[in-house]
This record gives sequence, C-alpha cells and structure tokens, in this order.
Amino acid sequence: MVHQLWRQFPTVQRELTQLQPYLLKVVTLPNQPIHTKITQLLKSGGKLLRPGFFYLFSAFGTQRDENALRAGAASLEILHVATLIHDDVIDASPLRRGVTTIHTQYGSRNAIYAGDYLFTVYFSEVMKATQDVAQLQLHIDSMREILVGELAQMQLNYKQSVTEAEYFNEITGKTAELFWLSCRQGVALTGGSAEVIDLAGQIGLTIGKAYQILDDILDYDGQTELTKKPVLEDLKAGVYSLPLILAIKQAPRAFKPLLKKRADLSDAEALTVQQLVNQYGGVEAAKRMAGELTEQALALIDQLPDLPAKRDLATLTTWLLTRNQ
Amino acid sequence: MVHQLWRQFPTVQRELTQLQPYLLKVVTLPNQPIHTKITQLLKSGGKLLRPGFFYLFSAFGTQRDENALRAGAASLEILHVATLIHDDVIDASPLRRGVTTIHTQYGSRNAIYAGDYLFTVYFSEVMKATQDVAQLQLHIDSMREILVGELAQMQLNYKQSVTEAEYFNEITGKTAELFWLSCRQGVALTGGSAEVIDLAGQIGLTIGKAYQILDDILDYDGQTELTKKPVLEDLKAGVYSLPLILAIKQAPRAFKPLLKKRADLSDAEALTVQQLVNQYGGVEAAKRMAGELTEQALALIDQLPDLPAKRDLATLTTWLLTRNQ
Repeated sequence: MVHQLWRQFPTVQRELTQLQPYLLKVVTLPNQPIHTKITQLLKSGGKLLRPGFFYLFSAFGTQRDENALRAGAASLEILHVATLIHDDVIDASPLRRGVTTIHTQYGSRNAIYAGDYLFTVYFSEVMKATQDVAQLQLHIDSMREILVGELAQMQLNYKQSVTEAEYFNEITGKTAELFWLSCRQGVALTGGSAEVIDLAGQIGLTIGKAYQILDDILDYDGQTELTKKPVLEDLKAGVYSLPLILAIKQAPRAFKPLLKKRADLSDAEALTVQQLVNQYGGVEAAKRMAGELTEQALALIDQLPDLPAKRDLATLTTWLLTRNQ
Repeated sequence: MVHQLWRQFPTVQRELTQLQPYLLKVVTLPNQPIHTKITQLLKSGGKLLRPGFFYLFSAFGTQRDENALRAGAASLEILHVATLIHDDVIDASPLRRGVTTIHTQYGSRNAIYAGDYLFTVYFSEVMKATQDVAQLQLHIDSMREILVGELAQMQLNYKQSVTEAEYFNEITGKTAELFWLSCRQGVALTGGSAEVIDLAGQIGLTIGKAYQILDDILDYDGQTELTKKPVLEDLKAGVYSLPLILAIKQAPRAFKPLLKKRADLSDAEALTVQQLVNQYGGVEAAKRMAGELTEQALALIDQLPDLPAKRDLATLTTWLLTRNQ
C-alpha cells in the first residue's frame, strides 16, 4: 500500500503501486537479515515523494518508456533511502519510520556497507533509466552536490553568526538537490523541452527548500509529538537551523551564554533555547520564509504547460507545504 | 613521490607520477579540512597497486587515450580510498598510512560522508574513462560485489565452522574483486581482445586472493611489527581468517572454549589463540595456499602475449606475494 496522500492522484498512485514491488526486487541481497531490514524500510510508509514528483513531471514529456521511468523513479527513492541509512548511523537514531535501524540491530559496519550497497543499486537503476551520458553525469553531479552540502555543515557547526545564505546553501545540498533532480528528471526522461526541464528543476529546488525549513521549524514549534528527532541533539552537535538563526539575529546576547556551552548543553538549557527561539520570533519568521517559498513554487508551477498534471502539482505542493501550519 | 617499488617499472612509474597530481585535483572539495585529510591520505605513501596493475595491463591493448587511462587509473584508487575511509570508521582505526583518520579528527559523520563523496568522484572518473555502457555497468557491478562481500561477512561472524569456500568467497568480494577490475580494465580500455581481458581478470582475481591471505597471515605470524591492525580486534568481532580456519580444522576442541567468549575475549586469550593457530599449523597451511595461488597467478601471466609488460607483471607479482615470506 502506498501512502494515502496519493489517493488524490490516481495516475501516480498506480505508478507508485507498481514501483513498490520493483523497489523490493532491485535491492535483493544475499545477506538475508540486512535484505530484510532494507525491505522493511522500503515498505514502512515512506511517502515516496521523490518518485511521486518525478511521475507527475513525466506528464510534460511525450516519450514514455514505462520500464525506463520505473528505473528512474526507483533510483531516486533508493538514493534517498541510502542517505537515510547513513544519516541514522551518524545520528545514532534507534528508529526510522517506526522500524529499528540497521546499525542498532546489526552494528554500524553493516549499516555503512548497506548504504554503500544501495549507492550501487542507485547507479544501476540510473543506467536502466537512461544511457545518455549527459543524464548519467547529471545524476553523479547531483549526488556529489548532496554530499558536498553534508560536508559543508561541519564548517557551520557552533557558528552563532551563521547567515541565512549559509543555511540555504546547506539545505540546498541536503534536501533540495534531490527534489531538483526528481522533478527535472521526470521531464528529461520523457523527452520534454529544455525550458520545461529547467522550470521543473526550479520548482523542485523551491519545494525542497520550503520542505526542509518546515522540517526544521518542527524542532522549535513546541509540537514535539509531530517529530521524532529532538532539537537537543542538533543543538548539542552545533547544527543551527533557520528558526534559531533568525532568532539570534534579533537577540544575539540572549543566546550567546547558552550556545557557547556547545556539546555540554543540558536538556533544560536546550528547552530554554527552544523557548527563546519562539520568544524572539524565529519560528514565526521561518514560517514566513517557508510561506514565501511555497508561493514562489506555486507561481513557477503556474508557468507550466496546461496539462492535468499541472493542477495536481499545485495540489500536492500546497498539501505538502501547508499541512502543519 | 610514488612508492619506490615502481622504480623497477619506469613506464608505470612515469604514469603514476602523473596520476598523483591528477588524483589530488579530482577530489577537490569546498570543505577545506576534509579536503586536506583526503589529500593527505592520497599522498601518504599508498602503493598505488591497483592503478599500477591497471597500467601494466594497458600494454596489452592497442588504442591508448592517455586522458581516458588516467581517469580509469584514478577511479580505481579513489574507490579503494573510499572503502578505506569507511573501513576505518567501522574499525575505529586511529591511523591510516601514518595519518590521523578522518573520523578521529572530525567525527564519523564527516568520515562517512567523505567516503560517500569519493564514490561520486569514482563514478565521475569512470565516466571520463569510458562512455561504453557495458563498461560502466561492469564497474557498478564490481562495486556492488565488493559490498555484497563485505555484508556477507556478518553471517560468518563467530562461526567456528567457517569453511575455506566461505572465506574465499568473502575475500573475493573484499579484495580480489578490485584487483580483477583493475587488471581487466587495463586491457579493456585499450581495446585488447576478449581473451586477454578475461585472462587479465583471472590474474587479478588470483593475485587479489593471495594478497589478502598474506595480509591475514600477518595477524598470526608473530611479526606484529609488520602490521598495524591487531588480531585481537578481528577475533573479538568474530572475523575468522584463513590461518585460524585451517587450524580449527586440525583441532576444533582446542579453540572452542576460547572462541565462545566472543567479544569478551581478553588480550591474553587472543594471544593464546594466536599461539594455537601457529601450533596447529594454520599459518603454515595458509602460507602454502598463498604460495599455490602465487604459482597459479604466475602460470596465468605466462599465458599472456609476449610483451615487455608480461615480464614486469611476473616481477611485480613475485615481489608483492613473496616479499614477507
């Protein structure tokens, strides 16, 4: 069963329903326990957002090769899951989508190698989707940008003067790049025009940024039941996201004594930071920025050729970026 | 300066000398500290065995595109270094080639992402080396086999009845696969015949197995100053290599009470295991098997077309596989 959000989009729902058994097939691994963990993760209710956007955008081309498209959709989800597995090792997260993480059950060794293994599956699927060397290079460059973004984070750690530009640069690599790729590949692999490919990429990038900001807002919004990753871990690790960055700008002195404790920040102090972020309008300002990006994404979608998929994209984007407001 | 072993092979030495600045260039990363670590690792005296074999085998084809060959050679070393970085996180190794490891200095997060990043550089270089889709697929399949091999280890952990076949299967993925790829790609990328490509692959596979056995023997040989990775860690982690496997076959009861302690094995007990492995002829028998593989590799090399590179390959193989005997 694919996520219920796709009920509103029956064409995509049908594609994603066929994608699921395909995903389970291509990750086949002789190591049964690890194979089981990977398939559990694939079956456990991820929204399949990246393949979903990919399929919606595939309506803007004219050449459909269903097998190639399925491999293209699979590659996006597999790259996403590979990075989740490595992220969970890094964050020492016990659960992902309600399932015990690989490193928790079988150690970091197997989790790191499982992620690495999925990178090879990713490239295999990309090669089934397209044998156009420029498209292959684009995929490799995109994965590279994702990792350059992750590595850039290190130099921002504990930096109380992180700028919005640095934050946006960081989330572009971490999140928006893969949305960019998913949207533009939907058009590119169906032979759409260069203009629509570019427009699709811009739409993906804008949606990806707004999506990540909303995720970061959840940490500070007080509604901690909505998210599983506590703000404390990020604060202790020196990862400062938009609500905090915007609040620091308003009152740097209020945050300084707390943040300079770095990894020694206590739970109570983290809660104080969380309250200060709200008090100094960081959450509100971040929501405003996410709202502006959502508007921008919708305006860009409005420039797409008039096809039913255009309305679907507007509906999906609105749902995705306003559901928790 | 490339490793002095290449002095005997001036043509390859010249190629590898030009490869080094190229390697440093292609791994360029905006994150300066991590970039510095990666370049330190590339400059710190690795033997460049895989590019070296690749270049020796490139003599057996007739079409030389030096830029494509350089990218091919670079891809092999970069894949190797990417796996070393992840291996060091997994083994929590403080040093690699005398340099502080990335995870020790900048944490697992950055080490995992640095390895992931190098995988993307690997694929970029492969694509510069060849745009032949079959060759690209071969590279992806090869990387996949390496990881399937690493993941297979898990199911052998603490298994006192590990067979030689299981061990060989494991080291084929872990080590021999990349030698297979390096040797055959040297011939394939210069347009050599299908027979020589196959033969090169077999030679690489055989050398890779012997090389890994010799590495595993070092752990038990008493000459601990030759190696930096202590046997204790592997024994505690349940990784049983050929000398131990062959000794257990001779005297299973001698090992059982010790090995059943698993992760609780003490340093003194590990030393006892090491002594028992020698006493029951495990080291000697493993050396015999490495010797047989070396003979096999040399016999296969002897089947290559008569070119100067053929003699060089025999010299290099003999040096590599008999230097510590």
